[in-house]
Amino acid sequence: MRMADLTSRAGVSSATVKWYIRIGLLPRGESTARNQARYDERHLHRIRLIRALLEVGGLTVEQTQQVLAAVDDPERGAADVAAAAHAAVSRRVAHQHTAEALPAVDRYLAARKWTVGESSPARADLAAVLAALRLLSGPIGNDDASPAADADADIARLLDPYADALEPLARSEVAGLPPAVHRGELAERIVLGTVLMDQAISALRRLAQENAFTAAADRK
Amino acid sequence: MRMADLTSRAGVSSATVKWYIRIGLLPRGESTARNQARYDERHLHRIRLIRALLEVGGLTVEQTQQVLAAVDDPERGAADVAAAAHAAVSRRVAHQHTAEALPAVDRYLAARKWTVGESSPARADLAAVLAALRLLSGPIGNDDASPAADADADIARLLDPYADALEPLARSEVAGLPPAVHRGELAERIVLGTVLMDQAISALRRLAQENAFTAAADRK
Repeated sequence: MRMADLTSRAGVSSATVKWYIRIGLLPRGESTARNQARYDERHLHRIRLIRALLEVGGLTVEQTQQVLAAVDDPERGAADVAAAAHAAVSRRVAHQHTAEALPAVDRYLAARKWTVGESSPARADLAAVLAALRLLSGPIGNDDASPAADADADIARLLDPYADALEPLARSEVAGLPPAVHRGELAERIVLGTVLMDQAISALRRLAQENAFTAAADRK
Repeated sequence: MRMADLTSRAGVSSATVKWYIRIGLLPRGESTARNQARYDERHLHRIRLIRALLEVGGLTVEQTQQVLAAVDDPERGAADVAAAAHAAVSRRVAHQHTAEALPAVDRYLAARKWTVGESSPARADLAAVLAALRLLSGPIGNDDASPAADADADIARLLDPYADALEPLARSEVAGLPPAVHRGELAERIVLGTVLMDQAISALRRLAQENAFTAAADRK
């Protein structure tokens, strides 16, 4: 198809398409004549993927470049593509007490027998939340002989209901991925499953909460 | 305590404290002398809350103002504070096909018997994800007599595992909130439960996924 057909089907301007090509998000079309190029369904699909990551996923252009570079690299396996998507989704918050909460996160992961790399940004993201919540709840187990163990029990009480729900979900997400021979499809599914489903889960949780508030009010 | 004690305990500069007061995030201290004010533990707690929402929750200053205005307003009940927190967390994406996916979201909510307001931004957030995924998966049930029903079945297959997990979690979150007589504590718990736990769940999900990838690779 020509540029005009591509832009009308994708709902983007030709300036946007040219910019995507210039920054390496989108491959060039096939040159057919001077200043003319032909595009195919793969270009259309790729533009839709770029827009989904930018607009719905909320990634920056730079994060989208990094994620799509992982998708495009035939050397990178499923876990590696997932790591790139995870890095893009990470808030990478720099809470002033994150470092102090990291050991508690690692003890929690060890207690759950979850194998997670030291450099995974999700560790620090979780530590930042725990550090912020701890500051807001005040010191716990102050008068106790084993404050660290008490804090660990508080963290497990807070996180276990979510981790118990997410663990089997993650297992079936990974089990349901296409086989490694379909690498392109596999990589894209991993990215969408991380970036877009993160938004879907956040939205579903708010909808479930709103429903729970309404139900609680009705019972009164 | 004096400004110097407040800033050292909160880990922020006095310029930041003065800015928070100027834009209405933080109440003034009690004036003790010309250019002198006394602050108490509530000021310290409030600064920690502001920083948690801004840094860990990723809210903008304007979203933080709106959420804290709801927390501070004695007229606003629990569901109302939750709505303010939900609005702040919403990505409010404007995917070009969101409007077309909204009816499917409403059918899904009806099938689950979830009561959700028409103006809840989470409805549109979920619709944006579904619209993006649908464009990327191509039209489904093309040759079928009832494509809308087929699409609904696809959506239920995609979302049900998450909704099944989130529904009882939301119910126990709401049931575990402090009673309405402790309004300030209740409002703050709702905000933290929405904004910070959203980050915690995203991080936990990535950790669970990484563990699932490792376990799957070990089995091979």
